[in-house]
Amino acid sequence: MLLAAKDISRETEIVMVKELIAKIQKTNAPIVVGLDPMLSYVPSQVKEKAFAEFGETLEGAAEAIWQFNKSIVDAVYDLIPAVKPQIAMYEQFGIPGLIAFKRTVDYCKEKGLIVIGDVKRGDIGSTSEAYAVGHLGKVAVGSRSYYPFDEDFITVNPYLGSDGVNPFIKVCKEENKGLFILVKTSNPSSGEFQDKVVDTKPLYELVGEKVAEWGADCTDGEYSNIGAVVGATYPEMGKVLRKLMPKNFILVPGYGAQGGKAADLVHYFNADGLGAIVNSSRGIIAAYKQEAYGKFGEANFADASRQAVIDMREDIAGALAGK
Amino acid sequence: MLLAAKDISRETEIVMVKELIAKIQKTNAPIVVGLDPMLSYVPSQVKEKAFAEFGETLEGAAEAIWQFNKSIVDAVYDLIPAVKPQIAMYEQFGIPGLIAFKRTVDYCKEKGLIVIGDVKRGDIGSTSEAYAVGHLGKVAVGSRSYYPFDEDFITVNPYLGSDGVNPFIKVCKEENKGLFILVKTSNPSSGEFQDKVVDTKPLYELVGEKVAEWGADCTDGEYSNIGAVVGATYPEMGKVLRKLMPKNFILVPGYGAQGGKAADLVHYFNADGLGAIVNSSRGIIAAYKQEAYGKFGEANFADASRQAVIDMREDIAGALAGK
Repeated sequence: MLLAAKDISRETEIVMVKELIAKIQKTNAPIVVGLDPMLSYVPSQVKEKAFAEFGETLEGAAEAIWQFNKSIVDAVYDLIPAVKPQIAMYEQFGIPGLIAFKRTVDYCKEKGLIVIGDVKRGDIGSTSEAYAVGHLGKVAVGSRSYYPFDEDFITVNPYLGSDGVNPFIKVCKEENKGLFILVKTSNPSSGEFQDKVVDTKPLYELVGEKVAEWGADCTDGEYSNIGAVVGATYPEMGKVLRKLMPKNFILVPGYGAQGGKAADLVHYFNADGLGAIVNSSRGIIAAYKQEAYGKFGEANFADASRQAVIDMREDIAGALAGK
Repeated sequence: MLLAAKDISRETEIVMVKELIAKIQKTNAPIVVGLDPMLSYVPSQVKEKAFAEFGETLEGAAEAIWQFNKSIVDAVYDLIPAVKPQIAMYEQFGIPGLIAFKRTVDYCKEKGLIVIGDVKRGDIGSTSEAYAVGHLGKVAVGSRSYYPFDEDFITVNPYLGSDGVNPFIKVCKEENKGLFILVKTSNPSSGEFQDKVVDTKPLYELVGEKVAEWGADCTDGEYSNIGAVVGATYPEMGKVLRKLMPKNFILVPGYGAQGGKAADLVHYFNADGLGAIVNSSRGIIAAYKQEAYGKFGEANFADASRQAVIDMREDIAGALAGK
């Protein structure tokens, strides 16, 4: 069974973080577009078409968010290295929603994008391994095996400790894929537990040190396949964590809608200009609803998203140039 | 839209924890059967039948675990109050696996069982709300709304703090459903972060206090709809947490296969004999593989599971009687 599973393994030895770096350098954009579609973001013409075909059903909602995603991806894929679909936004529509998630993952990969599944999974032992296999690896069924969701990276919650994280790392090694482990999240109450001082340092630093340790043998050269999530809303903490995890990429949520500013983001990058990738979700995919992009109109929502990506790229490049 | 969503709300005001207590008292079994099927647990005749119909595909695997679950549920449903399907074991088979998860949830509810979705989700704001809506509540699609997965309780990861938990509690209040929030997990390395001393107490106590606080206004009488997960493998910590969270039910994993013993479990119960519900997964669903139940044979795997439930019930009742 294992042999057969190996038969369909990918032959190429890609170190995922190297591919991410190559795409960041090619696009000059350390940017991730968060594909977190709420139905309220989807323009009425897209919703109406989906509901006309499938009714006001879970299938109709899934079709609406898939068509919305597809239009945005078509409009921005040449500008960015990666996307980050947030699975909760799909899971809320049940099975049809999860089918739309899978279609989105597949489509983005077809377009040459790196896909970071924002799944924040985390459990123990064989259960974490099941998640890892489901999202990053392949699962054996009799003499055959399959890649069920097949994202390139996923986000992982570290609360359960090494037992919870190691099965994900094992699958990353087998498949040359990667993780972003939650260290310091962008939300206002993230400090409730993450900032508590243990011994002489806050918990998030302890978790950051663990990320550096967990990722130490997943490094090919400069960077590790195992990264961290650190919110843009806590730049001083970002600065400390950047130094604690010099070889780990930081996925930075919280830019834009959540209040993180480009000037704050410079702390998340290393001197080589790498080491961070900044996510924007609502600010890109619902750009057409903002005053700044109102001129595009609802019908041209994808063009508004494209302009928002260009503006974000300039905003970040400007801040990095002034570093 | 909201009005329409309300139209299909359940009229009955069930406080979920009261229903759980009633079922525990009726069965005299504070037991949850963990429906965490690995393909290696499924007897060969069940797998062969599924593969004959669907091939060695994700659909075939999903059919095998669904038929396996169904046989076990049919054999044990009258003995127990609740089941706990671990979604990772389904998610690893992609969309077909998640369809098997949903079938399992629905079937168990039809059989009168309370379903605890072991999903360990946790995110922030609207993202946590999307998970809550998807698993416990209803999602609006145009003028209609739907219950996508519709479990009764789910497990939640607290690492992101109140921002991450409150959206789940909001949906629990709307739907009279419940949570079990991870406090002290059963795995060997759970102490890596959870046991760290902050100020004067370990982090798990701080999280336990938060659970008591979060659940304080979800209580109807003695117990709250908001419970906690505390592993059977840490009985001394369980004793402390029992006192810190007097009105919160404790879901106790780690009995049996992970090493937790019945004598240790008494600490998780209140003086009223309530307050805890003990999970066993492998020990029940793969009982036929144990020497003690070998006499049933692979063909009678479900009968072996029934006997394992009866034995577990006696084991726990004996320990509680000697408390």
